Amino acid sequence: MHVDTILAHGIVVTMNSSRQVIQDGALAFSKGALIAVGSAASVLAEYDADKLVDCQGCAIIPGLVNAHAHVPMTMLRGLADDLRLDVWLHGYMMPVEREFVTPDFVRCGTLLACAEMIRSGVTCFADMYYFEDAVAQATADAGMRAVCAETVLKFPTPDAATYEDSLEYSRRFIEKWRGHQLIVPAVAPHAPYTCTPEILRATTELALEFDVPLKIHLSETKLEVEESRATHGTPPIAWVKKQGLLRAKVIAAHCVHVDAGEIRDLCQAGAGVAHNPTSNLKLASGVAPVQALLAQNINVGIGTDGTASNNDLDMFEEIRLTALLAKGNTGDPLAVPAWQAFAMATSMGARALHLGDITGSLEAGKRADIAVVDLQGLHIVPKFSRDPDAIYAQLVYAAKSADVRHVWIDGQCVMHDRRLLTIDEPAVLAQAQAVAQKIDAFLITREGNVLDKLVGIGGLEQQETFEVQVKVALDDPQPVLAALDSPAVHISRSSIRRQYDTYFLFNDNAQGRIRYREDEILGNAGAVLEVRYSLTLTGPAHEREYAHSVVLSRSRFTAHATQSLRFYREYFKPISEVVVHKERRRYHIDYNDIDFAVNIDKITQPPSVSKWYLEIKCRTWSQRDAELKAQMLAELLGLFGAKERQLMRQEYIELAG
Amino acid sequence: MHVDTILAHGIVVTMNSSRQVIQDGALAFSKGALIAVGSAASVLAEYDADKLVDCQGCAIIPGLVNAHAHVPMTMLRGLADDLRLDVWLHGYMMPVEREFVTPDFVRCGTLLACAEMIRSGVTCFADMYYFEDAVAQATADAGMRAVCAETVLKFPTPDAATYEDSLEYSRRFIEKWRGHQLIVPAVAPHAPYTCTPEILRATTELALEFDVPLKIHLSETKLEVEESRATHGTPPIAWVKKQGLLRAKVIAAHCVHVDAGEIRDLCQAGAGVAHNPTSNLKLASGVAPVQALLAQNINVGIGTDGTASNNDLDMFEEIRLTALLAKGNTGDPLAVPAWQAFAMATSMGARALHLGDITGSLEAGKRADIAVVDLQGLHIVPKFSRDPDAIYAQLVYAAKSADVRHVWIDGQCVMHDRRLLTIDEPAVLAQAQAVAQKIDAFLITREGNVLDKLVGIGGLEQQETFEVQVKVALDDPQPVLAALDSPAVHISRSSIRRQYDTYFLFNDNAQGRIRYREDEILGNAGAVLEVRYSLTLTGPAHEREYAHSVVLSRSRFTAHATQSLRFYREYFKPISEVVVHKERRRYHIDYNDIDFAVNIDKITQPPSVSKWYLEIKCRTWSQRDAELKAQMLAELLGLFGAKERQLMRQEYIELAG
Repeated sequence: MHVDTILAHGIVVTMNSSRQVIQDGALAFSKGALIAVGSAASVLAEYDADKLVDCQGCAIIPGLVNAHAHVPMTMLRGLADDLRLDVWLHGYMMPVEREFVTPDFVRCGTLLACAEMIRSGVTCFADMYYFEDAVAQATADAGMRAVCAETVLKFPTPDAATYEDSLEYSRRFIEKWRGHQLIVPAVAPHAPYTCTPEILRATTELALEFDVPLKIHLSETKLEVEESRATHGTPPIAWVKKQGLLRAKVIAAHCVHVDAGEIRDLCQAGAGVAHNPTSNLKLASGVAPVQALLAQNINVGIGTDGTASNNDLDMFEEIRLTALLAKGNTGDPLAVPAWQAFAMATSMGARALHLGDITGSLEAGKRADIAVVDLQGLHIVPKFSRDPDAIYAQLVYAAKSADVRHVWIDGQCVMHDRRLLTIDEPAVLAQAQAVAQKIDAFLITREGNVLDKLVGIGGLEQQETFEVQVKVALDDPQPVLAALDSPAVHISRSSIRRQYDTYFLFNDNAQGRIRYREDEILGNAGAVLEVRYSLTLTGPAHEREYAHSVVLSRSRFTAHATQSLRFYREYFKPISEVVVHKERRRYHIDYNDIDFAVNIDKITQPPSVSKWYLEIKCRTWSQRDAELKAQMLAELLGLFGAKERQLMRQEYIELAG
Repeated sequence: MHVDTILAHGIVVTMNSSRQVIQDGALAFSKGALIAVGSAASVLAEYDADKLVDCQGCAIIPGLVNAHAHVPMTMLRGLADDLRLDVWLHGYMMPVEREFVTPDFVRCGTLLACAEMIRSGVTCFADMYYFEDAVAQATADAGMRAVCAETVLKFPTPDAATYEDSLEYSRRFIEKWRGHQLIVPAVAPHAPYTCTPEILRATTELALEFDVPLKIHLSETKLEVEESRATHGTPPIAWVKKQGLLRAKVIAAHCVHVDAGEIRDLCQAGAGVAHNPTSNLKLASGVAPVQALLAQNINVGIGTDGTASNNDLDMFEEIRLTALLAKGNTGDPLAVPAWQAFAMATSMGARALHLGDITGSLEAGKRADIAVVDLQGLHIVPKFSRDPDAIYAQLVYAAKSADVRHVWIDGQCVMHDRRLLTIDEPAVLAQAQAVAQKIDAFLITREGNVLDKLVGIGGLEQQETFEVQVKVALDDPQPVLAALDSPAVHISRSSIRRQYDTYFLFNDNAQGRIRYREDEILGNAGAVLEVRYSLTLTGPAHEREYAHSVVLSRSRFTAHATQSLRFYREYFKPISEVVVHKERRRYHIDYNDIDFAVNIDKITQPPSVSKWYLEIKCRTWSQRDAELKAQMLAELLGLFGAKERQLMRQEYIELAG
């Protein structure tokens, strides 16, 4: 019988249900489908082919399945490393994505990723990004097989202002691509904590309507699980189950922190899991309980996650790490032996993507997704044949992506003798590098300027305020408190606070400094009523000075601090920090029809400056107004009995620092 | 000025104390020593060279330092994987080493390892094996730098019948090699648990006498630490300190399970530590507390360990894993950033081997140990330049050993454009494969035969015994106990035991079966006086039968079981097991001047056969003797009042199985 192609004389690692390995094996395929798999002698006797490829010294394996990726992020490989997840995500990835992600960006990143994956023997992957139509098109152009899932989030994304737009995009995307030979369109509610219940339900209905997979990040970090328990009273998987999401053909990425009940839920739902060992280590999320998942017969595939957190798409590294980590994590050296890790990246990985009937093993009837791995590299020799599983140990513990020699996907040769046949590698590299240079320039400008860096993470009220203010040291606050009762003064409101201020200082004084404030507002008996977090960028110097040490100062930008102090510290990388704690009695007063803020502060830290201070402040908007208000401040100082020698122009940070 | 070689236009990653990176950099070297490191412009202006190598698009890095290896074991790569440490070591490595390790084996394995290491950018390693003179010679021939340490153990080794012989070998070895340009000879007491205090002290004195490093495995497994605490009352590092060992220039491999006090000891001793992440995961030993060690300024290098537990010598994989694992292990994504992991494999690694003044960084005056890494592979692009540490992320998280293009060691080019210049690769591969085939044949024969497999792990008394025996079921043991008091019988000794027997059954009945017995000998009041563990291989069938169901049986081999039941289970891989527990009253009697063993057994498990049995046994040595003794057994049966219908030919396992 005549076929398109025969690969012969390699070790055929079928990954069929009996894990058959054929020593001097061969396989024949035509029109993208595997026709025969067997001994070289039998296949060559029965079939002749247009093309006969001698695979002596090589293993013929099912193309590898990368179960979780964000392929366009390959454009951001190495952009920002060794950072905490939030700094990495909110400080770098998201600002850059907001600025640069377009269909062109996505197409270039996808082609770059496809090139790298083909080189390392991957024939099928599951993706999750924006402009997924461009991902699907580039993937199809590269001749790769993929589950392409459009991401839906409750926030605006690079390709949608609202989640309704994302849902609409997803529907059109699925309608366009369903039935494609290589692309399985899908929808991806990003994660339980980034989606509303409506999004979880709507994406589920969409996946069910078109019978396509649903991809989602689940239980990646401990924090996610803790917050889910705190907010919903259930862990994330129970929460999405409640929204009906497990009725879809789920592909769940991560599942690092899952309990026995959730594992049971995943099992009953027939969900596939994508284990991402490098990404989970690099972001310090943890190690997924792979053995426990496998014990419940859950199909666990292996993924690279995005290159931005990996930093490559090398499935050989991931398979190896899967086998190694399972042992280290359980203390059991028999956990996840080489054959099982290899199955996770082939047959089981395909099942995890709900593509088990199409790819993942070398069996007649399946699509011809094949990689040929050279086993002659000196890092693989010598070879022992006693143990029938030795071939898996060679592939998992010794072989590398650079050993992959040929790759066919759906019967099409996409790499021959390490030469890519469907992707113009130099063109893609040049385009990627050109974009990288623009991103570099964007970030270098931003990083060179604290204000830009502050604006870069978003959420700031971009508003400058000017104040005139005066400050005196007090031996005793009583005279001031008494004066506040005078008829010349009307107190409109007052509060008692404990303020914990951390100032970030930078090398270049002209950059100003950033103050992170935790502001506890106290009620009766000292109970904390409310805590406010704010971030303020102030300029380096006073704008102007008046008589009696009254100064005009500019508070450039103030915003709610939505992230933690730790986040800002890692993001802004100050050269030093100064901490000031104080107890503040704050009065808003009306004096001569002008509003003033009066602060009676007791500094509690640092101890060196621990005493009482009086501050009087007033907003202003013009030079003349400022002069008038400076005069009023002088009057108030007199009213409060402040002595000239106690007047000071320094701010607390200058006293403390 | 004229020099031998200039490398120019690469990114020079110096790893000097200020971690200087020179973008368009160059270096010049002559007679093996680095003369200049700087910008390409300045170096090219000042020097001219016989050879100028353009390194555009590449990083020029210090040659990597593999801080712990057993290089000849490369011959055993992939021989036995996914096994527990003891099965791997006692079942496979040691039997094969006993049989095959010779100077030729060691030479071939060393050359194979050197070839693989040079290919992956390694220029210096620390080794620990047998016939270390052959390791040193092969390493010097390959032009590599190494600390070569001869192993000393309390057991016989492939190159020494006693540890005195090993010590003598070590002394001669050190005398021969000290002062060599590339080789630093050393001594290696294998580990605290495999060395006597005398060995620890003698090797320390030897290291001090010649001022050479001392290499040792320390605190690799939890079990090792627990046993040290139980035996010596101290953990391993405290124990070796007590023997004075920390006075030497120590290179401590593993240090996985170390406490704060031990870390302090290592620090005060100026000991170097070799972290072996893959090996420690693969054998499920754990993850060394790298961050805690680094926090005490201990020089921590990175090692591959032997290929037999890795399975390659790829330092790029180890560096990457070091950076990743530190994060996963501490939950801190900022732990061991890329630059630090890279330092561990270069400058700090060299210091860990006490070679910090010679190698590990690119600085004028140091030896020219250099690797050039191509950064143009598509798995590394795009490249961002904002972050000065981005080059380390590229090298650690994305680059691979296959990206190494050129290597110089001590100024000699050992690889140019991926072609090895000092090693005849095909010849080494062919020789290694020829040895592998012999090992394969040896093991295949052994594995095909339970007896050979039993002999293979050693320690067996290789002695066949023949017995005649008879067995009857008893309704009540009292009549037998009464008969034992008869004047015809003299009881020479007796005991009461609880015996827990586990039988291993194999597919091929002709292989016989293995019985693992835990034999508790009870004293008064049922207290356990002693427990004996034995392993017995019995043939598949009775040799002969006589009247009254008397059978001649052959117990082929019996030995003390020095390993656990779990070990034997994983090593022999039985297809099934049968458990029989019994309480045995055992009498040695003299009847007609012949010794018989009389067992009155109560089977307690399985419950289905739980009743009383009488066994009478007698050793025999000839056909005629066996017939005579069969007759005596029949008489004894009569004396004990056994009924013909109670006679049985089955063994307990046949009743139970």
